[in-house]
Amino acid sequence: LILSKLQEISPFLKKGAMVTDVGSAKFEIVKAAEKIMPKGVFFVGGHPMAGKEESGIEAAEAGLFENRPYILTPTARTSKKALEQISAFVSALGVNLLELDPRTHDLVVAAVSHLPLAAAAGVVDAVLKKKEIEAEIKKCASSGFRDTTRVASGDPQLGRDIFLSNRKPVLVLIRELVRSLKTLEKLIRAADGEQILLWLKQAKEFRDSSLKTLRE
Amino acid sequence: LILSKLQEISPFLKKGAMVTDVGSAKFEIVKAAEKIMPKGVFFVGGHPMAGKEESGIEAAEAGLFENRPYILTPTARTSKKALEQISAFVSALGVNLLELDPRTHDLVVAAVSHLPLAAAAGVVDAVLKKKEIEAEIKKCASSGFRDTTRVASGDPQLGRDIFLSNRKPVLVLIRELVRSLKTLEKLIRAADGEQILLWLKQAKEFRDSSLKTLRE
Repeated sequence: LILSKLQEISPFLKKGAMVTDVGSAKFEIVKAAEKIMPKGVFFVGGHPMAGKEESGIEAAEAGLFENRPYILTPTARTSKKALEQISAFVSALGVNLLELDPRTHDLVVAAVSHLPLAAAAGVVDAVLKKKEIEAEIKKCASSGFRDTTRVASGDPQLGRDIFLSNRKPVLVLIRELVRSLKTLEKLIRAADGEQILLWLKQAKEFRDSSLKTLRE
Repeated sequence: LILSKLQEISPFLKKGAMVTDVGSAKFEIVKAAEKIMPKGVFFVGGHPMAGKEESGIEAAEAGLFENRPYILTPTARTSKKALEQISAFVSALGVNLLELDPRTHDLVVAAVSHLPLAAAAGVVDAVLKKKEIEAEIKKCASSGFRDTTRVASGDPQLGRDIFLSNRKPVLVLIRELVRSLKTLEKLIRAADGEQILLWLKQAKEFRDSSLKTLRE
């Protein structure tokens, strides 16, 4: 979709114009966009990370981007001037501006954003398989279930596009999660309280330190 | 721990006394507690589902139990009178009272509470394995990561005790989650957008319908 729009607008772009996007995966888009842009027009990939489960114009919110990460993904082909101007533009939104190369960007968002979606929807999918206790599950769903699965209430079409546009990094992270769960499964089966505690402690420490900058 | 306390107090319990607990797993506890109780003393397992990631007296909060599920797990051995009295007592806290048999209780809480913990800590564990992008991950952790992993910031000792005290149902649900993730992995590898969309839609529908009664 982004690429077809770029193709559509490219004949009308003047020399010196800058183009950016807000897609959730960058490597493929940036590679293709740099080929589409006419000579003298620069594309700088962008990704504002301000997730909400609602979508559409009704979900608009002033200050949505404030203090949220906004990643730009310049490459060796990006002009310094184009990058500076786009940086100045998005900085005006009050965001936390970051620069990452497109490949690193895709792995980072697979980790912090696309894997949470896979896990959240996976938890719901696992739970809904237990049809014999469906009524009880619906009565007992608690704040832990609500928060862990919140992102599974997002737009399914957006989720599908995210998984398809960032396939390789998402698959790397899903496989890593399966490995983690199998480790936990083994420890629980062995009733290894000491190692379970260590596993949970490491996760807690990493999570707590990751979120120092984020309002809870 | 609960069982050793029950053993300690049992000599001092008068006939007609009622005993309850607030542990997160019920089958083993209820079975053992019914054996420990002196003749004429009734044990009714209880489980208030009001999770917070903080623990200790500092985390106390008036109204913590209000509108939250509070499960009692009577058995064939429970006297009707004891159940009525304990029901009246916990109802006074403003909870949503539910009765489940101990085995069903354990599967339900494995689904809505213990699996979310396993998944949340699993996501963090998977992400922290990507050491080469640790700094970027910490900068980009967004609200999706925050919510999906919130329960992983809970007390690790409590988490360990939960996994150990409810081993079998927890293992059943972890295996179900691994199956779900492998299904998703297969669909993404095949770039099967239609089936990914269906998978996400089903999860969204179930989650949205589970949480109708819970404040978001």
